[in-house]
Amino acid sequence: MSIRVGIIGAGPSGMAQLRAFEAARKQGAAMPEITCFEKQSDWGGQWNYSWHTGIDGAGESAHSSMYRHLWSNGPKECLEFADYTFDEHFGRPISSFPPRAVLFDYISGRVEKSDVRKYVRFNTAVRWVNYDEATEVFTVESQNVKTGASETHVFDKLVVSTGHFSVPNIPEFEGINTFPGEIMHAHDFRGAERFAGKDLLMIGSSYSAEDIGMQAHKMGAASVTLSYRSSPMGYDWPSSTVERPLVTLFEGRTAQFSDGTSGEFDAVILCTGYLHKYPFLPSTMTISSSNVLYPGNLYKGVVWQQNTNLFYLGAQDQYYTFNMFDAQAWFARDVMVGKIEIPTAEDRSADISRWLERQNALKGHDEESDFQTDYVRELINATDYPEFDLDSVNALFKDWMRHKSEDILGYRDQTHRSAITGTMSEPHHTRWINAMDDSLERYLNG
Amino acid sequence: MSIRVGIIGAGPSGMAQLRAFEAARKQGAAMPEITCFEKQSDWGGQWNYSWHTGIDGAGESAHSSMYRHLWSNGPKECLEFADYTFDEHFGRPISSFPPRAVLFDYISGRVEKSDVRKYVRFNTAVRWVNYDEATEVFTVESQNVKTGASETHVFDKLVVSTGHFSVPNIPEFEGINTFPGEIMHAHDFRGAERFAGKDLLMIGSSYSAEDIGMQAHKMGAASVTLSYRSSPMGYDWPSSTVERPLVTLFEGRTAQFSDGTSGEFDAVILCTGYLHKYPFLPSTMTISSSNVLYPGNLYKGVVWQQNTNLFYLGAQDQYYTFNMFDAQAWFARDVMVGKIEIPTAEDRSADISRWLERQNALKGHDEESDFQTDYVRELINATDYPEFDLDSVNALFKDWMRHKSEDILGYRDQTHRSAITGTMSEPHHTRWINAMDDSLERYLNG
Ligand SMILES: Cc1cc2nc3c(=O)[nH]c(=O)nc-3n(C[C@H](O)[C@H](O)[C@H](O)COP(=O)(O)OP(=O)(O)OC[C@H]3O[C@@H](n4cnc5c(N)ncnc54)[C@H](O)[C@@H]3O)c2cc1C
Ligand SMILES: Cc1cc2nc3c(=O)[nH]c(=O)nc-3n(C[C@H](O)[C@H](O)[C@H](O)COP(=O)(O)OP(=O)(O)OC[C@H]3O[C@@H](n4cnc5c(N)ncnc54)[C@H](O)[C@@H]3O)c2cc1C
Ligand SMILES: NC(=O)c1ccc[n+]([C@@H]2O[C@H](COP(=O)([O-])OP(=O)(O)OC[C@H]3O[C@@H](n4cnc5c(N)ncnc54)[C@H](OP(=O)(O)O)[C@@H]3O)[C@@H](O)[C@H]2O)c1
Ligand SMILES: NC(=O)c1ccc[n+]([C@@H]2O[C@H](COP(=O)([O-])OP(=O)(O)OC[C@H]3O[C@@H](n4cnc5c(N)ncnc54)[C@H](OP(=O)(O)O)[C@@H]3O)[C@@H](O)[C@H]2O)c1
Repeated sequence: MSIRVGIIGAGPSGMAQLRAFEAARKQGAAMPEITCFEKQSDWGGQWNYSWHTGIDGAGESAHSSMYRHLWSNGPKECLEFADYTFDEHFGRPISSFPPRAVLFDYISGRVEKSDVRKYVRFNTAVRWVNYDEATEVFTVESQNVKTGASETHVFDKLVVSTGHFSVPNIPEFEGINTFPGEIMHAHDFRGAERFAGKDLLMIGSSYSAEDIGMQAHKMGAASVTLSYRSSPMGYDWPSSTVERPLVTLFEGRTAQFSDGTSGEFDAVILCTGYLHKYPFLPSTMTISSSNVLYPGNLYKGVVWQQNTNLFYLGAQDQYYTFNMFDAQAWFARDVMVGKIEIPTAEDRSADISRWLERQNALKGHDEESDFQTDYVRELINATDYPEFDLDSVNALFKDWMRHKSEDILGYRDQTHRSAITGTMSEPHHTRWINAMDDSLERYLNG
Repeated sequence: MSIRVGIIGAGPSGMAQLRAFEAARKQGAAMPEITCFEKQSDWGGQWNYSWHTGIDGAGESAHSSMYRHLWSNGPKECLEFADYTFDEHFGRPISSFPPRAVLFDYISGRVEKSDVRKYVRFNTAVRWVNYDEATEVFTVESQNVKTGASETHVFDKLVVSTGHFSVPNIPEFEGINTFPGEIMHAHDFRGAERFAGKDLLMIGSSYSAEDIGMQAHKMGAASVTLSYRSSPMGYDWPSSTVERPLVTLFEGRTAQFSDGTSGEFDAVILCTGYLHKYPFLPSTMTISSSNVLYPGNLYKGVVWQQNTNLFYLGAQDQYYTFNMFDAQAWFARDVMVGKIEIPTAEDRSADISRWLERQNALKGHDEESDFQTDYVRELINATDYPEFDLDSVNALFKDWMRHKSEDILGYRDQTHRSAITGTMSEPHHTRWINAMDDSLERYLNG
């Protein structure tokens, strides 16, 4: 009997798992019985943009945190699939920092060509999972989000690829409950057009705060204040942007900061990150972690330590994205079919500990990039996923970070070379700061 | 062995179920083993206000749709508990339309005095329910929303009291995905302060559209446009408020209406109602209904037709609220303990059909009020819930609707007489249109 594989989520990680099996099939391997559950009506995960915020049109929590005018925040050369290049998809060089729709087109293109859509049940959410230790079988309760129709499925192997940048982390601040302006989490941000002329307060000091803040600046915000808990980002901000330590109190429209300064704001955007949240899993199978490069309890960052029939993809904080999900999916596939032999629990535990220790010692972004490069390398070496020059990708991450610190509004205008095809990217026809149309058509056809 | 009763949700309905069992215990009945699951950190359901919108601080969908400056929209005399009067709680007459905090205080007061808090597991969401036909037992999978800790519980009887005004119904409108202003559903509305001077578009023509529209007017909105699908509300609106048929298209800030008119708007509030949504129930146990006075498949609006161990409370559209939930909870209790004998499936079905036929023939609000009055009467007659003069409550509903059509900004200044105590309400110290502090303290102490 072929193994029964359940995959929860058809974002880039779940799509990578489908592609991994399809790649093996093309080389003559048997295809397992695959069912992929996707609660949205299309695949692409975060990249499947929707205007909905909070609760979506089917009464489910809106998944995607992306917004209009979102452009890749890292060079596309860092996330390129080794088995499906940008050249293959677009047929010509494109720029290094494409907008969302262009990357959505790229990731969809690969799986459309792989004929794997048939494995995905769209509009279907997984509600609960049980595992029977005796029979070594997962029972998955799913529900059609539009009709409510529920089904019970049984699997030998289960892949959790539901992402962890979707459920907002929302801290409390004294007085925020009576702030009279708009309050939202970055998860619900869809565009900065309406903040023209407004004074914005962003709480958080990571990618979302930076990018939404600079989009608001681009769209004409009067001022952008970035409030940090641990440390300021320290970029060379435009003059109307300032960094302040953490908010201590809201009183009406006024926010007080811990350095004694204060300001009046029209809107507050909580860029305070996301939760690892798995409302469909018993606690014995659930990651409990903040957003880090190596959440514990996963052998090779993929295999659940207490149950090696359970796999997580994309559970890490991410320098690498699409190609890391590939590396994980190929690895998970080979574990499932027995091509990769899983060591003893003790050995797995020692391996996890080694990575955790290294993680604990990391200092700064360059070392983090080295760390994840080595992690991806180890996975790729274990499977037949096409090798590529990871050192050059790692160097690219470091260039990118330097470019950001030199010019936070200009780094997306840089061009970079593909580590896979050697193709040099084209400068985009419009500088990011002036680009006001983020559609695929405008991007490709100028 | 005493029966094991699970209750999902500790809003007014779930609280009524707790009180019903406690009332029987006081009269010498045996208390069943009760576990009530409440995903929020306090009881009160909708009345437990939170500033959170979309996803709350624990990563759960925010439950309450209530907002600052929400005042009862019906006379409190229509919802008064027959076994715990306003006089008993407040010790003196109060006005007929109190703000949210005052009604929260009232409903909490009754159950605090009943010593039933111990049955409630707060911060605990029910994730999935199974029913075993053979053993006639429910298996309930719950999860602590803060720690993720999951538990499996077993019950003989299950009460679903999770409300149906929490999961927004969000229709699509052409062009809405690029509307540059704020878009929200009424579920996420928390206050109109920031709409002072703005042009607002509300879609929908029921309670939410009316009340949020008039709050926005009170808070200084430049204009309020109410767009209806079926028919206009037709109240005597202030001059800056207009009704228009349904939006056909958004283009930038402009909305086109089906009568050929158009307008420019700063924000859109979808007052398009809510979904009956039970993501924790298999479809065999799930209500599938729009918001009506008598959703099908429930004997006496309470007992699930295919499984008489399963009960729904508060599943109806609501003229009556708190006292109707009581009537239902007392009824459900007596069915559970065998005091009320359940007729055959055929007889139950005939009874349901009778109500559905009458519902189908209803014309206008007065007849709807008659209908629900008769429904509540039937339930109360079947149990020992204290009888009260339902005809006078029904008359009160009709007065209230007349007052609304006479003066949509003034109906909350009317006073009414309690059908239970005969107490005449006090005029409030401040007219609703001028009342800018909705706190309990200001309400009680002037
Ligand atoms: C605002 C934002 C911007 C980003 N920008 C970039 C960028 O520029 N470049 C980059 O490389 N990365 C970016 N990322 C990182 C992003 O995490 C990855 O690119 C990628 O989307 C992760 O893929 P995933 O499949 O692991 O998760 P997701 O993309 O989150 O997909 C998870 C899927 O699981 C589904 N799902 C969830 N729960 C259930 C359930 N119970 N049942 C069924 N289906 C379910 C969801 O609907 C979704 O389709 C960004 C992330 C965010 C939040
Ligand atoms: C905006 C608004 C204003 C209203 N104003 C009035 C008014 O003025 N007067 C009036 O009489 N009525 C009013 N109502 C009607 C209201 O529906 C009732 O008053 C009452 O709150 C219904 O009680 P309930 O217990 O049935 O549902 P709810 O009050 O909705 O309570 C349901 C409870 O179930 C919990 N829950 C949900 N899912 C789960 C889960 N999976 N696991 C565990 N717990 C769960 C929720 O957290 C919540 O506490 C209003 C409703 C709305 C939406
Ligand atoms: N393509 C794009 O342009 C784009 C845009 C946005 C996001 N993204 C992607 O989205 C993902 C998530 O990024 P993110 O920035 O949302 O999350 P994140 O990287 O996890 O950062 C979370 C931030 O929230 C702060 N924070 C958490 N709790 C807080 C609290 N209680 N008070 C104050 N601050 C608090 C953290 O501060 P500490 O540092 O103190 O912990 C941190 O700065 C990343 O993969 C990113 O690349 C991409
Ligand atoms: N205390 C208060 O002041 C207060 C305030 C707000 C709400 N409430 C309570 O909250 C509950 C819910 O009230 P509600 O008004 O939110 O919901 P509701 O009474 O169910 O009304 C839903 C409205 O949405 C409209 N609608 C649905 N789908 C639509 C679509 N696709 N396009 C256009 N319109 C659409 C309906 O129009 P049709 O008529 O065409 O179907 C109807 O007007 C009630 O119990 C109410 O009493 C109380």
